[in-house]
Amino acid sequence: MKLTTIDDIEAAAVRVRNSVVRTPLLPSLWAPAERPLWLKPEQLQPIGAFKLRGAANAIARIPVADRPRGVVAYSSGNHAQAVAYVAKLFGVPATIVVTTNTPQVKVDATRAHGAEVLIVPPADRESAAAQVVAERGGTLVPPFDHPDVIAGQGTIGLEIAEDLPDVELVLVPVSGAGLISGVATAIKARAPKAQVIGVEPALAGDAAESFRAGRLVDWSTEDRARTIADGLRSTPSELTFAHVRAFVDDIVTVSEDEIRDAMAVLALRSHLVAEPSGAVTTAAYLNADVPAGRTVAVVSGGNVDPALLVDVLSAARTPE
Amino acid sequence: MKLTTIDDIEAAAVRVRNSVVRTPLLPSLWAPAERPLWLKPEQLQPIGAFKLRGAANAIARIPVADRPRGVVAYSSGNHAQAVAYVAKLFGVPATIVVTTNTPQVKVDATRAHGAEVLIVPPADRESAAAQVVAERGGTLVPPFDHPDVIAGQGTIGLEIAEDLPDVELVLVPVSGAGLISGVATAIKARAPKAQVIGVEPALAGDAAESFRAGRLVDWSTEDRARTIADGLRSTPSELTFAHVRAFVDDIVTVSEDEIRDAMAVLALRSHLVAEPSGAVTTAAYLNADVPAGRTVAVVSGGNVDPALLVDVLSAARTPE
Repeated sequence: MKLTTIDDIEAAAVRVRNSVVRTPLLPSLWAPAERPLWLKPEQLQPIGAFKLRGAANAIARIPVADRPRGVVAYSSGNHAQAVAYVAKLFGVPATIVVTTNTPQVKVDATRAHGAEVLIVPPADRESAAAQVVAERGGTLVPPFDHPDVIAGQGTIGLEIAEDLPDVELVLVPVSGAGLISGVATAIKARAPKAQVIGVEPALAGDAAESFRAGRLVDWSTEDRARTIADGLRSTPSELTFAHVRAFVDDIVTVSEDEIRDAMAVLALRSHLVAEPSGAVTTAAYLNADVPAGRTVAVVSGGNVDPALLVDVLSAARTPE
Repeated sequence: MKLTTIDDIEAAAVRVRNSVVRTPLLPSLWAPAERPLWLKPEQLQPIGAFKLRGAANAIARIPVADRPRGVVAYSSGNHAQAVAYVAKLFGVPATIVVTTNTPQVKVDATRAHGAEVLIVPPADRESAAAQVVAERGGTLVPPFDHPDVIAGQGTIGLEIAEDLPDVELVLVPVSGAGLISGVATAIKARAPKAQVIGVEPALAGDAAESFRAGRLVDWSTEDRARTIADGLRSTPSELTFAHVRAFVDDIVTVSEDEIRDAMAVLALRSHLVAEPSGAVTTAAYLNADVPAGRTVAVVSGGNVDPALLVDVLSAARTPE
């Protein structure tokens, strides 16, 4: 299996330059001095999550002659927003397939980016997208299982290595593992002394179990849906798991309460609103058995339900 | 009166480079297309506010021979944190004079940066600081009324002009007016087509009234203390008002409800926790009579009382 290379990621960085925000590394004054922590705040991207990096690289790679036939994505979350947003930037028509149980606000947000939205029953999601591709000749942009998407997400690792060359530990959320595949590839090439550790909710800890087993372990969709981290309910593909086995040092898990507490810390101490999926790396920094040293936590997104944010902040004590 | 120049600000940018985060401009997808909005998120600075730019420039300018005698500041807010934090970076002893009504959490935070904290009655604040300077020969770092502080804050304007050379409107919070003095000086030199408009809470609208009168108008401390924007209760000095008259196009005011609503928009739509003082520019963008065009709102800080944040978010409708 051909893995994404640092050259692919360097090329992606040039392609996505005008579509993404070059996020800074934020020193965290609340972290103990012996374990300094920097946050990579990807919720500051225009759609509120890192996903537009991969989408931008994938769409930029579509030959100009093919672009009028458009792009297609199926997702109810940040990936759909990312594809719709980037397609608009590139002047490419976008069709987003969502399911009948997708909240109206997300449908409206996707339409606001100028995308056509197809609403289908949950079971028909992939077949409906395939049908659009077959009928119109458009290009499917998958959420993680694609080399161009992995290379785009890897630009985060490139930026971390540029800004903090002596980083010792990079914590990355894991779901379909496109993000950690790209980040780990970049870090191992550009800051090879650093460990790259994935973080999952324990309730969706299939990748952690797969990592230990050395092969992809199957968890049911129902099991993976138990976590509040709604962006971390996917499972790695053969392609992303190959990157994980090659470049990732460990995958650890965090509890639901640890995720909530980390959301409060990020809001009250670092002034960043994170969605549960974005807060898992801070949760791991605070609670999991990870090495000490100069640490970067990738905060992957901030699209949180306002009621959950209020709930989490209400439960938090006043910061010291 | 000698005003700060663009050369002073360029020199400050070099001096503060290793102490401050180079904050990005964040495009706001929720803004209407005809009035595109970028946020300059200064709450992402290590102490949660822009204040460390001015403090870093002022402390860097202290001759090496004088540094062992330390720096002194009086403030109960972000400026004290900034001086304590930067002094520690520079290895300079810091004495911060706070008043007996300062919350213990702020005293603890200042001590956590290694500063000595003197607690005195509110009326004795300035005299106590002057006494420390007289006894120890340290350097007083004022919160806004100093050319080096103005030049340091001006680095924000320099970065805005670098990142968005065709900016048409820059909105800046106004209190003592050190921030807008520096930003306006930089913008008028580097992006001269842009208007620079200050924003105040109506309940602390002394600078807006002074701007219209063409002279400094005096509001009582009690009047200025009515706003929830606790960082915007100071009043311009002769020095900063001279910059305002030279370079600022207008000063507008916003209501307390507009400030609260803007805090919710920033948290829920832009994933940024802003303190009330930091949210006034977004409030002005949403409500005040300001020109259309490519707009930057400086979000000056994020150190908000958790209970107020919860209150503001609870009152907000779910974002569309």
